[in-house]
Amino acid sequence: MNFAMIFYIVGWILQFEAGFLLLPGFVGLIYQEYIPAAAFFATAVLCWIIGFLLHRKRPRVFDLYAREGFVSVSLSWLAMSIFGAIPFVVIQDIPNYIDALFETISGFTTTGASVLPEVESLTHASIFWRSFTHWIGGMGVFVFIMAILPLVGASNINLMRAESPGPSVSKLLPRVKDTTKILYQLYIGMTVLEILILCICRMPIFDAVTITVGTVGTGGFGIKNDSMAGYSPAIQNVVTIFMIMSGVNYTVYFCLLRKKFKEAFSIEEVRWYFFIILASVATITWNTHQMYGSIGETIRHAFFQVGSVITTTGYSTTDFDLWPQLSKTILLTLMFVGGCAGSTSGGIKVSRFVILTKAVQKELSMMIHPRQVKQIRMDGHNLPHETMRSTNVFISVYCLVMFASMLLLALDEFDFTTNFTAVVATLNNIGPGLAGVGPMQNFSIFSNFSKLILMFDMLAGRLELFPILIMFSPACWKKY
Amino acid sequence: MNFAMIFYIVGWILQFEAGFLLLPGFVGLIYQEYIPAAAFFATAVLCWIIGFLLHRKRPRVFDLYAREGFVSVSLSWLAMSIFGAIPFVVIQDIPNYIDALFETISGFTTTGASVLPEVESLTHASIFWRSFTHWIGGMGVFVFIMAILPLVGASNINLMRAESPGPSVSKLLPRVKDTTKILYQLYIGMTVLEILILCICRMPIFDAVTITVGTVGTGGFGIKNDSMAGYSPAIQNVVTIFMIMSGVNYTVYFCLLRKKFKEAFSIEEVRWYFFIILASVATITWNTHQMYGSIGETIRHAFFQVGSVITTTGYSTTDFDLWPQLSKTILLTLMFVGGCAGSTSGGIKVSRFVILTKAVQKELSMMIHPRQVKQIRMDGHNLPHETMRSTNVFISVYCLVMFASMLLLALDEFDFTTNFTAVVATLNNIGPGLAGVGPMQNFSIFSNFSKLILMFDMLAGRLELFPILIMFSPACWKKY
Repeated sequence: MNFAMIFYIVGWILQFEAGFLLLPGFVGLIYQEYIPAAAFFATAVLCWIIGFLLHRKRPRVFDLYAREGFVSVSLSWLAMSIFGAIPFVVIQDIPNYIDALFETISGFTTTGASVLPEVESLTHASIFWRSFTHWIGGMGVFVFIMAILPLVGASNINLMRAESPGPSVSKLLPRVKDTTKILYQLYIGMTVLEILILCICRMPIFDAVTITVGTVGTGGFGIKNDSMAGYSPAIQNVVTIFMIMSGVNYTVYFCLLRKKFKEAFSIEEVRWYFFIILASVATITWNTHQMYGSIGETIRHAFFQVGSVITTTGYSTTDFDLWPQLSKTILLTLMFVGGCAGSTSGGIKVSRFVILTKAVQKELSMMIHPRQVKQIRMDGHNLPHETMRSTNVFISVYCLVMFASMLLLALDEFDFTTNFTAVVATLNNIGPGLAGVGPMQNFSIFSNFSKLILMFDMLAGRLELFPILIMFSPACWKKY
Repeated sequence: MNFAMIFYIVGWILQFEAGFLLLPGFVGLIYQEYIPAAAFFATAVLCWIIGFLLHRKRPRVFDLYAREGFVSVSLSWLAMSIFGAIPFVVIQDIPNYIDALFETISGFTTTGASVLPEVESLTHASIFWRSFTHWIGGMGVFVFIMAILPLVGASNINLMRAESPGPSVSKLLPRVKDTTKILYQLYIGMTVLEILILCICRMPIFDAVTITVGTVGTGGFGIKNDSMAGYSPAIQNVVTIFMIMSGVNYTVYFCLLRKKFKEAFSIEEVRWYFFIILASVATITWNTHQMYGSIGETIRHAFFQVGSVITTTGYSTTDFDLWPQLSKTILLTLMFVGGCAGSTSGGIKVSRFVILTKAVQKELSMMIHPRQVKQIRMDGHNLPHETMRSTNVFISVYCLVMFASMLLLALDEFDFTTNFTAVVATLNNIGPGLAGVGPMQNFSIFSNFSKLILMFDMLAGRLELFPILIMFSPACWKKY
């Protein structure tokens, strides 16, 4: 294990975070919240100093193997959250540090699960920082680190494995740096566009910015106690569209930019993604139409909730915990599905389900024609055996982590639906669950021990399980 | 598709069932229930005639490929259940045929899920037949068909694949017929032994026989409204021991018979099986000790419920739906685990979990040492790639079936825990679930549509998914 290199990377990232921490400070100044502003500036300085100290010593060896990549990514998330939580406690917006850490990890992992019973009394600086952590974490460490590591100077191919939010992201351009640049441009472009349109829909600028960073990062921290329910239908529809767009594989936008329209619309995962959304909306509309005034309103709520859950954002315009059981079960199923690989969303990812479905079809077909030689194909290419295996192992680990978390959460003695959906909502980086953690509830009911478990689940989910799990293997920490 | 061959096999099996149907007829005579006895005898005659007609025409080609094997096994189960349900309706013990079919499928699949709110008012003949279906289905079609098919004269190696209740059953003896014989002897020996010991514990002979056939077949239909709660602690303990013994891989007994003690105790799956049982009992005892009078009573209830659930039997001595959440979650986890491969129990099977755990370990290890070549070993042998793949695909199909069933069940608008555990309890062939289908509740609450879904789950679970699923593939039905 190249410890020097890990310190070097984590230090570098903390210095970046120091820069980001200045923004909520400025927001505080704008709203004349001087003490909160000071808290953010002070934390920024602290963060920069620690980062500088860690980053100061240039490692002798710059080689980076997978395990260093995984460990440094996991530790970076953890370090950012540990420092990012400090201002909440200093300002006393979230007095308990464990709660503040939960909220910050929930932010950086783009989960959106909150321990706060109400958010409107928070300072503007805190509300902004809370949502902005989504944007920072949003692109997954995937792009974040792809841009940072080249600066560090190490080869970054091993880190990519940990970051890519899905089984495989098509290489967009031969050079990683160029890909990163375009992804950044798309991400920022989408952010600016949504802010503009929301402002045109007469949303206050502060609301527009915070809601947008939460949408594009597929995070979902609300800035009102009723999440998005109080906004106009126009605003809700805009957010719906941007949520669903944020769950699409970014390769699509890249192809569209290059005018490769045929390629863009032929990606199997994306087709399935839209098919699942439309089928879910249709069923929920049929199932819930008696709850709302008009069919238009029903469709709006159905689209919003489906888009919010499948992209693992977590905003809500209505308390879907009051929906009939069928609609709730559909949402629960979508929580597992998640968005496309190569997007900022969490969950198991549509592409993994497409791969698994094909594997099952192949197995059935082989039982009927035992001598047949069949290759699984996706997007016109043969799927490598390697991808199949890692997809299968992913599902197994996913189930193991889920059951272990549920068992530990059960110590709190809440009902089964609450425990189950709390784990599902954090492991898939969604935010709200059902029953005790429904969209109008929050995670403060849990004990500190359970909160730690759920924090672990959020990190494990965001980093696609292995980078976090590997840290529990003693072999990982051995020196060369 | 060799239809002639399939009719031939199903006909043969129906003739066997006709023989079995005579037994409850005799029980009826003993208890002077003449009309019920007549109903069973009449059904036996009907069953024999239909079986005879189907079996009469000897197929020209005796070749049997996997798909014929799968289809004939699935249809055999179905046909047996369709005829086995008739007496319940005729006697009016279960007036609705859908309910009677549910009860019979639940019996033959050794599930033990019941639609009856109370059983004590049934005729003795019905109670006996209900439990006896467990014994018939008990050994899985695995042994049942292994003994019947050689009589038919076809090669039976393809059928074995469908029947073996687990990823791989070690071949005990070179010849299938010899293996079958020994398994039968073990099965019958265990049955006789349990009946004897229960009689010594002063259980009435009728109760001893019916409870035993439900134990050895890991079925779990109770003959009292409170399942096993009313019996003496001694009787409960005997049943606990026999339930746990019935969940053990039968290879162990075979090795013990041959005095290969070292081999018997070195089977990894069996070690894990006992480890899981002991760990669960210890935790539940700690978690529930305040609910019962003494530590001894707590341990007795914990052992009974753990043994009942992990072997997918489904008897109960206490209403575990009233247990604390941690204990309930442990039981729920055990429902998925199931017993050992090569036993009569259902569920995913311990060996599959052992294989998955090893695959995950391998994956983590390969991330730390990417150039390492590591083979997964089990019981001292390298695990073939084939086994790994089929295990992984099994888990995927399992999850797909589970979610699809939950979505369809949600139409009935019961709470999530009820729907979820109803699917889990039927797909794993356990019997009772939690909440609305808890140990003191029953499945009559569901609509006919939901009952059909749950019947499908019971059959799919018992036949390890693929034989049932393959019937939905049009390619399966094509003529050669």
